[in-house]
Amino acid sequence: MKGVNALSEILVALSMVCLCLLCQCNSETVTYIVHMDNSYMPKVFTSQPHWYSSTLASLDSATEHGNPTVLYSYQNALHGFSTALSPQELDTLKQTPGFISAYQDRATTLDTTASYSFLSLNTSHGLWPASNYGQNVVVGVVDSGIWPESDSFKDDGMLTQTPPKWKGKCEGGQRFDPSFCNSKLIGARYFNKGFLAANYSDDVGKAGVDSVRDSVGHGTHTASTVAGNYVRGASFFGYAKGTARGIAPRAKIAMYKVAWGRHTFASDILAGLDQAIADGVDVISISMGLDMVPLYEDPVAIAAFSALEKGVVVSASAGNAGPSLGTVHNGIPWVLTVGASNTDRSFGGTLILGNGKRFSGWTLFPGSATVRNLPLVYHNNASACDSSALFSQVPRRSIIICDSVMDVKQQIYHVSSSQVYGAVFISGDPTLFELEKMPFPGLVITPHHGKNVIEYARATSHASATIKFQETYFGTKPAPTVASYSSRGPSWECPWVLKPDIMAPGSSILAAWVPDLPSAQIGPNVVLNSEYKLVSGTSMACPHASGVVALLRNAHPEWSASAVRSALTTTASPLDNTGKPIQDNGEPSQRASPLAMGAGLIDPNRALDPGLIYDATPQDYVNLLCAMNFTQAQILAITRSKAYNCSSPSYDLNYPSFVAFSVNKSATVERKFRRTVTYVGDGPAAYTARVSSSNDTQISVSPNRLVFKAKYEKHNFSLKLKSEMKKENVVAFGSLEWVEEKGRHVVRSPLVVLPTNFVFSP
Amino acid sequence: MKGVNALSEILVALSMVCLCLLCQCNSETVTYIVHMDNSYMPKVFTSQPHWYSSTLASLDSATEHGNPTVLYSYQNALHGFSTALSPQELDTLKQTPGFISAYQDRATTLDTTASYSFLSLNTSHGLWPASNYGQNVVVGVVDSGIWPESDSFKDDGMLTQTPPKWKGKCEGGQRFDPSFCNSKLIGARYFNKGFLAANYSDDVGKAGVDSVRDSVGHGTHTASTVAGNYVRGASFFGYAKGTARGIAPRAKIAMYKVAWGRHTFASDILAGLDQAIADGVDVISISMGLDMVPLYEDPVAIAAFSALEKGVVVSASAGNAGPSLGTVHNGIPWVLTVGASNTDRSFGGTLILGNGKRFSGWTLFPGSATVRNLPLVYHNNASACDSSALFSQVPRRSIIICDSVMDVKQQIYHVSSSQVYGAVFISGDPTLFELEKMPFPGLVITPHHGKNVIEYARATSHASATIKFQETYFGTKPAPTVASYSSRGPSWECPWVLKPDIMAPGSSILAAWVPDLPSAQIGPNVVLNSEYKLVSGTSMACPHASGVVALLRNAHPEWSASAVRSALTTTASPLDNTGKPIQDNGEPSQRASPLAMGAGLIDPNRALDPGLIYDATPQDYVNLLCAMNFTQAQILAITRSKAYNCSSPSYDLNYPSFVAFSVNKSATVERKFRRTVTYVGDGPAAYTARVSSSNDTQISVSPNRLVFKAKYEKHNFSLKLKSEMKKENVVAFGSLEWVEEKGRHVVRSPLVVLPTNFVFSP
Repeated sequence: MKGVNALSEILVALSMVCLCLLCQCNSETVTYIVHMDNSYMPKVFTSQPHWYSSTLASLDSATEHGNPTVLYSYQNALHGFSTALSPQELDTLKQTPGFISAYQDRATTLDTTASYSFLSLNTSHGLWPASNYGQNVVVGVVDSGIWPESDSFKDDGMLTQTPPKWKGKCEGGQRFDPSFCNSKLIGARYFNKGFLAANYSDDVGKAGVDSVRDSVGHGTHTASTVAGNYVRGASFFGYAKGTARGIAPRAKIAMYKVAWGRHTFASDILAGLDQAIADGVDVISISMGLDMVPLYEDPVAIAAFSALEKGVVVSASAGNAGPSLGTVHNGIPWVLTVGASNTDRSFGGTLILGNGKRFSGWTLFPGSATVRNLPLVYHNNASACDSSALFSQVPRRSIIICDSVMDVKQQIYHVSSSQVYGAVFISGDPTLFELEKMPFPGLVITPHHGKNVIEYARATSHASATIKFQETYFGTKPAPTVASYSSRGPSWECPWVLKPDIMAPGSSILAAWVPDLPSAQIGPNVVLNSEYKLVSGTSMACPHASGVVALLRNAHPEWSASAVRSALTTTASPLDNTGKPIQDNGEPSQRASPLAMGAGLIDPNRALDPGLIYDATPQDYVNLLCAMNFTQAQILAITRSKAYNCSSPSYDLNYPSFVAFSVNKSATVERKFRRTVTYVGDGPAAYTARVSSSNDTQISVSPNRLVFKAKYEKHNFSLKLKSEMKKENVVAFGSLEWVEEKGRHVVRSPLVVLPTNFVFSP
Repeated sequence: MKGVNALSEILVALSMVCLCLLCQCNSETVTYIVHMDNSYMPKVFTSQPHWYSSTLASLDSATEHGNPTVLYSYQNALHGFSTALSPQELDTLKQTPGFISAYQDRATTLDTTASYSFLSLNTSHGLWPASNYGQNVVVGVVDSGIWPESDSFKDDGMLTQTPPKWKGKCEGGQRFDPSFCNSKLIGARYFNKGFLAANYSDDVGKAGVDSVRDSVGHGTHTASTVAGNYVRGASFFGYAKGTARGIAPRAKIAMYKVAWGRHTFASDILAGLDQAIADGVDVISISMGLDMVPLYEDPVAIAAFSALEKGVVVSASAGNAGPSLGTVHNGIPWVLTVGASNTDRSFGGTLILGNGKRFSGWTLFPGSATVRNLPLVYHNNASACDSSALFSQVPRRSIIICDSVMDVKQQIYHVSSSQVYGAVFISGDPTLFELEKMPFPGLVITPHHGKNVIEYARATSHASATIKFQETYFGTKPAPTVASYSSRGPSWECPWVLKPDIMAPGSSILAAWVPDLPSAQIGPNVVLNSEYKLVSGTSMACPHASGVVALLRNAHPEWSASAVRSALTTTASPLDNTGKPIQDNGEPSQRASPLAMGAGLIDPNRALDPGLIYDATPQDYVNLLCAMNFTQAQILAITRSKAYNCSSPSYDLNYPSFVAFSVNKSATVERKFRRTVTYVGDGPAAYTARVSSSNDTQISVSPNRLVFKAKYEKHNFSLKLKSEMKKENVVAFGSLEWVEEKGRHVVRSPLVVLPTNFVFSP
């Protein structure tokens, strides 16, 4: 996991530890999430919560902790509750009529703002004006809380009326008064019972457990990225200076705080999602996920199915465990899974040599450093920059050149503890630019430029240089690239659908931050904070997509959640700003596969008018679950309702992308897919199929021409694929495009063929 | 010289060195300033410059450098020229008809912006609206040049028409295009011939010699303090945040660059002043001065006399050599000499102990440091903080308490090189708050608070603390106090008039800065720059007064330069914001004497309507020079013209303050002063004299009641003083107030009695 933000790194690492701790611990009780079939509820109970608590009360408890109590009862995301149980109590509970399943609570991994322009959002045409900037759409952000005083959450220019179907509220707590809500932040709730039950007493104080107030920064950042108001003069220590704004600047925010410091639990996430659905949000943005859990125990999967039924799109982050394949989380068929891209914005400075030559480079030194007309030193030993002691040989008031023998991050560390005034680092590592830290007045230049600079320093008797900082560049090429840290498909939970679906800007995103928390560092011991922070991660990509979904909700209120996902997928761009296929920063100079980027970079304006849509009903998703051989209880844990049936199990989910693989380890993969497209254009139109793939893969589409007479007309087609997998580790990929004749729509679906070894057996 | 800004410290120190170097150097030629009597010019010459150069050409030069040439010919400030001469050439020149005097060129010492509100300037009434914010008044700033790109010099809201009498121009040069001038910056010229003639070749590059562009910062700061435009969101790394503006925000600026890096020469200053007068400026602001030169060789004195004749007020800084007495420079009777005060604004942060107790303290740490919930350490050895090595005993992630055993500035230095995360310094030194630097996340608290903090740290097992930075406080009491560094009277050049005249805010003044230059520091090696900087010095006080003069020029165009100076002096406030006499920060808890603060803090709104005025004509000043026994040549060097005579020599300059001393070393000082006041109110009025003084001084005024029937009526009075000087070093002081009966005017003149040992013999 290179180049991901430090916060997420910590969270990922620690949550792994937590999971293990939970499994091994011998404490008498463990928190469980219990799914119940409400149709079993005896008529004497007036409500499900009443039934649940009565059920727990009736357990013949053999432990000294007394009868278990309900932590949460869930009514929307699922039917059921969470509770702390002893093994005996769990056994008894399983015998209760209406019991579907129970599984242990789990710790979760948590996975700005010139990016709107990188996504071509603009005020003159396209999705922004068409959606009225998301006016009055409610985005439920399930995260670590919010810093309500941030300028991004002021309500200047917001409609004061509450959306009619809104039923949420603003919950007070520690350092959070209900009056902190306004016409921008209309809902705020917190869910900490799972966290408290897990008894991380040492962290309770730091987590700020009794309030929606953000003590992590993550939720403040994501919420402002989705729907932050306009804030002039935002910057991260002078970088990325400009007017910050969310992707849907006129949408309203409801924060559901479920992440507590370093620990986040499935029971709390479920409670937050449950409440968000009950409150009537239009979109759910969730920048966290559980690794390697089956769909029927994944709180996001469970809640998102309920959301799907209500037409609420759930947009979730893919995770920061890339570039290894098979690392994506939230790989849920009925969720929009979002990977992270780098953008065309970069930060840096300029090295000006005494001879006038200028070299641009990367830096994020958090201040207006003055490194001006100082001696430029290339020193045979010290320029290795691999030990702080070496610098005693270098004059303090000088700029040291650090040659690229070792890891630049280590060099930065050593130079930061030295007393020299500036440094020039030389490195070609493309993930370096996903870094968020430069605690020293240094600049990273390419090896190509480095050669010139070293030459100058060696050949010139009074070599000198100046370094300028706080520069922000646009138009970096190529862009986007897939961020190296972005988790890759296939999905462990459901490899039959391509995940991630799309990618959105995730690297160096400027958004609001908690001013109480560290944001940058100078030298070994000076820690700085700021109200806006550049952060990288799929957690930052997800709210971009959530914001676009919010805009589409206003532009196309008639679309189902599946239709919205289809529109975003089939219009995403697989090309970068040089017109070539997007590259993968995790595998430099390699063309990115759909396992890395899904269909490509989200394209909001094109999504407004996708031409054709791959729609799907909740039953369609159930048919996939049936094909996956889930038990009835497992399916019921997701669907809550017996209204769904397994009469037509099928892997052919009507999804806007294609994944094929050989289940029986043969080297030849053959697959026939069936799909239905719905025409959402106006007037008659005809589309022709155009396929592309690598040489060893044959694709045919039948019929390969579709003629539509009117809006909402549907047509079926089939796609046949035959691929020879020559090497075990190579993924083949291609695409199907429905190209509008005499029109401008191109409806593109990515296509992937996986060699055997990538297939999991959930 | 405690607590003065580093820049001025360096300048003062180095200029002393330069003076010595100049005197000792044996180079063949030395630059001289030569005064000539233009009435001697033969009729064959069409112009004075022609005459001057011809005179030089006719010198029978014995040196190999060829005949000397004119560096500058001066026409306004004086009649004469500067040139580099060998001793023989000088001798020959002295024989030339019309020669008055010649003296060596000298190196000079260079001496924002919530202060407007501290001075009660406001938009609803008083001097700001009465003067239309100085609209179209031209302030000539004689300084180190200007950074034209600063937001403070944008011309939004400025009248585009050039003042009719304006004859200046915008001179192009290195990195300075004439197009940089606009409706705010209407003039820009540079004068470097004296500097170049002095041959500081090493410094030529750094000084930026071929342009008005500021390479020092000083001129940019003073110019924006006088007349900077409104700039929203200005701050010094988060301190003093707000809208910056000059005292006369609608006045126009003309920059005369005469200061070059560390070296500034009298010949260049004279040229700049000469040009400013020729160009038609309304006010001259000059924040530099020469120490210990006689009036007839002081370029400021010489040029200011010419300015006086034209009704142009010259406002000059007192110098930063306080708190010793007799250190004031620019102590020129016809100049407004301005000392520096501290204001009621202070900068700092808050220490919050783990037990919730809060202590405010001083800091200027230049960043948003996060020092939060860290262990608070009081360590028997390390808390001396007198060696960087000690800190190895202290955990890095902690806040160290530094006890006040040694100099806090040294402690800050040592802690800055350590790796601890924060520090609490304990000190009661009031001059500490005139400091401009805190390169480490530390806070200075008082010994009284320090006791509590040490007690808490010692008694508590897990003592912890948080420090908040970037806080700006208003309402500090007492304020103003005299800044310790402000140079004190009496004037070496002319002890018969009280200098400084008044004081203005000079400490921690926020104004525009050169973004290329260092502005602050973090740790031992990170140097930061910024577009606005807090700087302290009389250099910052002077432009405040110059700005007020510019406002008065619009409000009272009919007043003479002497009248303006009188209005400012007699209305200045001797009381602080606790209603008590202003204290002297140079002698803590001591009442400030008029030698430190003149009449007190400048009060712009009262100066608008002073009631009575002590006016004086140029001849009145000449009468004083005559009494001082100056030779005719010496007087002519100042006056340029034989129109003045010595028929009435008199120490009784009609000055708005009183200085008495015994010339013959007697312990009893007796003096009778004669003064004339001009009534500038409307309608009839009567004033009664009220005197105050220490016990050993008797004062009587005759008549002690003055009745005025109409505006501009004049009355004479005399003041008799008898004082017993009991101790040699004690200065006695008091005041005369003319109190309006049935009115609100109080016309106050400070009064000083000097013991013998303070009198110089110029």
